[in-house]
Amino acid sequence: MIKISIDVMGGDVGAEVAIAGAAKALTRHPDITYLLYGHEQEIVPILARFPKLAARAEVFDCEVAVGMDEKPSQALRRGRNVSSMWRAIEAVREKQSDAAVSAGNTGALMAMAVFCLKTMPAIDRPAIAGIWPTTNGESIVLDIGATIGADAKQLLDFALMGGAMARALFEIKRPTVGLLNVGVEEVKGVEQVKEAGKLLREADIDNLEYAGFVEGDDLGKGTVDVFVVEGFTGNIALKTAEGTARQIAEYLRSAMGRTWMSRIGYLFARGAFRMLRDKLDPRKVNGGVFLGLNGIVIKSHGGTDAEGYAAAIDVAYDMVHNGLQAKIQHDLTEYHARNESPMGPEAA
Amino acid sequence: MIKISIDVMGGDVGAEVAIAGAAKALTRHPDITYLLYGHEQEIVPILARFPKLAARAEVFDCEVAVGMDEKPSQALRRGRNVSSMWRAIEAVREKQSDAAVSAGNTGALMAMAVFCLKTMPAIDRPAIAGIWPTTNGESIVLDIGATIGADAKQLLDFALMGGAMARALFEIKRPTVGLLNVGVEEVKGVEQVKEAGKLLREADIDNLEYAGFVEGDDLGKGTVDVFVVEGFTGNIALKTAEGTARQIAEYLRSAMGRTWMSRIGYLFARGAFRMLRDKLDPRKVNGGVFLGLNGIVIKSHGGTDAEGYAAAIDVAYDMVHNGLQAKIQHDLTEYHARNESPMGPEAA
Repeated sequence: MIKISIDVMGGDVGAEVAIAGAAKALTRHPDITYLLYGHEQEIVPILARFPKLAARAEVFDCEVAVGMDEKPSQALRRGRNVSSMWRAIEAVREKQSDAAVSAGNTGALMAMAVFCLKTMPAIDRPAIAGIWPTTNGESIVLDIGATIGADAKQLLDFALMGGAMARALFEIKRPTVGLLNVGVEEVKGVEQVKEAGKLLREADIDNLEYAGFVEGDDLGKGTVDVFVVEGFTGNIALKTAEGTARQIAEYLRSAMGRTWMSRIGYLFARGAFRMLRDKLDPRKVNGGVFLGLNGIVIKSHGGTDAEGYAAAIDVAYDMVHNGLQAKIQHDLTEYHARNESPMGPEAA
Repeated sequence: MIKISIDVMGGDVGAEVAIAGAAKALTRHPDITYLLYGHEQEIVPILARFPKLAARAEVFDCEVAVGMDEKPSQALRRGRNVSSMWRAIEAVREKQSDAAVSAGNTGALMAMAVFCLKTMPAIDRPAIAGIWPTTNGESIVLDIGATIGADAKQLLDFALMGGAMARALFEIKRPTVGLLNVGVEEVKGVEQVKEAGKLLREADIDNLEYAGFVEGDDLGKGTVDVFVVEGFTGNIALKTAEGTARQIAEYLRSAMGRTWMSRIGYLFARGAFRMLRDKLDPRKVNGGVFLGLNGIVIKSHGGTDAEGYAAAIDVAYDMVHNGLQAKIQHDLTEYHARNESPMGPEAA
């Protein structure tokens, strides 16, 4: 049995999507039980439409819902102890739940998660890892926006945590890890990235294969299983890719509608276009994983629908089921035991 | 008459592409005269195939060609005064040419351009501006890789130079300028970006409209005419977009080839696909513009063909024809005259 706590109030659409999403995920993973946090009078009538879910869910009434525009500090002040977001996370801390899911605002969710769960002993700063669709399958990209600026040691932590997540998500033994840079030569890029490359090259890590520097166009190819980058650049790269995908979809739509020939062509190729739409469907890879905290928290896209929300719950399920936290803990412990000095064996 | 000096030896393919590209651009702009720098014995037989170009071109024999893998310092040591790359730039300094074009390696080209032409008096560091296709037309994005890390003052300089380039390239009076950030709220992002936002908000600039922070997905939409970003992130965003476009093209190709229905559809919609390919053609927007130097230097993609090379020459032509340097100079002078203190009027 896997217990998942849900901040039902988060997101642009709120309870309707979260509950329908929870019901959908339950059909795929019948061993989930849910703890639903939010306005009870809003949740109960929706829940009544999903009897199977209702049988596996407990509702906890919370008076406060964190707004999508609230600043993290404000959300924390107003929502600590009493908001649906806080209580969904707190359930993880109290071991009543194995993972928390929220579609609420990222800044507030991260602030509450850090405040409530605290970072792991060896970790300075958390990261958000995203799942990136590639021509090769899927890769993990972190950090996509938790930590603006990261030094070499933090980039190394991201590599270790991303590697552990790849082992949990893709079930591969020794994921490849690349550092995102402006060129593949060892002389290029910012100091932190070069230094992190040195640490990773010199490190003795069983569960991870360091593949060197990678560039922006490697993301779409899935050259490595895990792409490590500081949060400002990672966030901009993610949104640039999303924007480019939408831009091309728009070009394609307008090209296919222009002449009667192309419209006929579209009719014949409908199946192919459906396949393409499926490939590009952002709901399928929904779920940013917060890494480096003493507990699993998953951020769903705020504007998603039930299908997307269910995908975020799927990620939470996989992370619990495949022992993400234990894998991170193991890799960090192993790394620090073998490479006593934080600057790598050379400096020890 | 506009004089353009060409480093014929640069790029992955060299003289063949550069000369064919120059011939192509000449058909569109018959008032160009060329100064061609490179191995004379290689250039002369190719040039013989383009009699119209030969009539408008002078060949300068250079013994050294800078390699695509040479480090900037090495290229400068080996190629100063004698390489085709150096001499094409030097022609600009000596006023024999109005702009230099090279498909050679970016690092070496930038190092030589800075060394030979020097940065403009008010500019600390140069930028490379790229032309980004958007659903809205085209936008300018800078810096895409000249300067790793940029402080607030340098981001402000990039905004001024990008604005001047937009006036020269798009012939609009008051381009909109946005700062690339991880959120549109004024509280978000790195310090330099927030500080640059403050400088731009407070600045009194006739030729530029500051539009605030923009995000990665605004690039594809062309929300603003000019996107300003530090070079590490800008380079990764550019390559991420290129990679995403290739990834989707590959999905599309494989989807269209899967069934006989989709293959028939493809035949009918051939025209539409041609249009789409045209829209996504990276050759059409070839040409990175070096900004902030005492002279115009254009970097063509190293792996392009004659069509792409001609597009880079078109950019050089437009920049000279529309007075890029004078526009930059004017905007910088005006800004500094009106906002005496470099920290903006508030701090004055």
